[in-house]
Amino acid sequence: MSIPEPPPGTPVPEQDERPPDGQDAGPGDVPTTHAGHGYLSSNHKADYLRRLRRIEGQARGLQRMIEEEKYCIDILTQVSAMTSALQSVALGLLDDHLDHCVAAAVTNGGDEAEEKLKEASKAIARLVRS
Amino acid sequence: MSIPEPPPGTPVPEQDERPPDGQDAGPGDVPTTHAGHGYLSSNHKADYLRRLRRIEGQARGLQRMIEEEKYCIDILTQVSAMTSALQSVALGLLDDHLDHCVAAAVTNGGDEAEEKLKEASKAIARLVRS
Amino acid sequence: MSIPEPPPGTPVPEQDERPPDGQDAGPGDVPTTHAGHGYLSSNHKADYLRRLRRIEGQARGLQRMIEEEKYCIDILTQVSAMTSALQSVALGLLDDHLDHCVAAAVTNGGDEAEEKLKEASKAIARLVRS
Amino acid sequence: MSIPEPPPGTPVPEQDERPPDGQDAGPGDVPTTHAGHGYLSSNHKADYLRRLRRIEGQARGLQRMIEEEKYCIDILTQVSAMTSALQSVALGLLDDHLDHCVAAAVTNGGDEAEEKLKEASKAIARLVRS
Repeated sequence: MSIPEPPPGTPVPEQDERPPDGQDAGPGDVPTTHAGHGYLSSNHKADYLRRLRRIEGQARGLQRMIEEEKYCIDILTQVSAMTSALQSVALGLLDDHLDHCVAAAVTNGGDEAEEKLKEASKAIARLVRS
Repeated sequence: MSIPEPPPGTPVPEQDERPPDGQDAGPGDVPTTHAGHGYLSSNHKADYLRRLRRIEGQARGLQRMIEEEKYCIDILTQVSAMTSALQSVALGLLDDHLDHCVAAAVTNGGDEAEEKLKEASKAIARLVRS
Repeated sequence: MSIPEPPPGTPVPEQDERPPDGQDAGPGDVPTTHAGHGYLSSNHKADYLRRLRRIEGQARGLQRMIEEEKYCIDILTQVSAMTSALQSVALGLLDDHLDHCVAAAVTNGGDEAEEKLKEASKAIARLVRS
Repeated sequence: MSIPEPPPGTPVPEQDERPPDGQDAGPGDVPTTHAGHGYLSSNHKADYLRRLRRIEGQARGLQRMIEEEKYCIDILTQVSAMTSALQSVALGLLDDHLDHCVAAAVTNGGDEAEEKLKEASKAIARLVRS
């Protein structure tokens, strides 16, 4: 049986190479336009980074399990755990986004409020259906 | 709002450190008992490794997006893409498992067949519910 | 293999009996406190009722398929279609809720805004994980 | 078992027309071609019917909640419960299908075994992605 490919249209970024640390956004060069981002203003940034590093470690652990030819069911259990961890990150980011970006836009009102609400709804639909 | 933690009971392996290459399972030390694993016997091993390396790259890309304070919705779009890629790997592994391990156990019959079917059903339920 | 029961704690209302029509909420007895509900103020009420009647018909169709002992895979295809229809209803209700109830609470500000945002996030998490 | 008649005005679901009662499969006239269906041979038929009647009742309860203009979040909670109940039915049917139809095909071997495994994998993918 062939391995199913990801559904067509799924964006798969080529992000296998990490930029040198010196090019990472540091505290000194944060654009002011980003100040309202939920995960930043709520000081959750370090927490998300920690969780994503653990998820990256789970991806490496899965490769090791395949290389060492571990039992399929044990690999599937790890995939389920990793999927749950990813979902938790997504739900946390969505919470922060609603609490900050969307709430700010709604308070200001007008077209931006409507646009932000529509955008959030689409992101929720992608999460529910993925 | 607080960041939701993974549901209790979710196994989160500490696999952040990759063992030195020399310790990886090579062709010379594959236990013979593993020979029947679906993803191995169907030569899908290299394909799974390639896809998991890309997923690992996506996890790194997400960290970079958080570090650079990208827009929440764009991050969520990447999380959905990564979740879909993980699901495809899981469905592929499950296919291989049914086609090889489970089918072999069923052909042999007896308690092992029943056990393998029960185990596969539980793995499917975890995938559907995660 | 035993049939898995719904996960513990899942509320399963006993709503098999429809109240006499005379007891249904009519235009004359709509509590004014409900006037701000999203699905009502956006005139989507009739649309949701139409979609839920179709979903009810799908549940009856599934019973008929079981009674007539149709092929398992065909029944599963209908279950997937019904699940997708339910998800669409949920996403629509959530959109309306964000656009109306939550947006109104955010505009008013204070504790109610925070509470509504938290409540919405929990509902989203239930949808994503169910 | 008697299926409650749809209320007037209920749209006809997409399923086939119900045969006259005399043609319903009773204990005495089960077609032999159906004998291998998992949910039948494992005597789970009555259980599935009971659960689907409850799901049908949940669909009616949701309509009543919309008609009575209940709070959006309470409706969403019921939708999540109904989705979970549907998923449990799907997982049960899939278990029975693997244990009986697929296992029988695998034991017989040949093209039918491969076809049944492929068909089951596709049904699992639909469940995971819906």
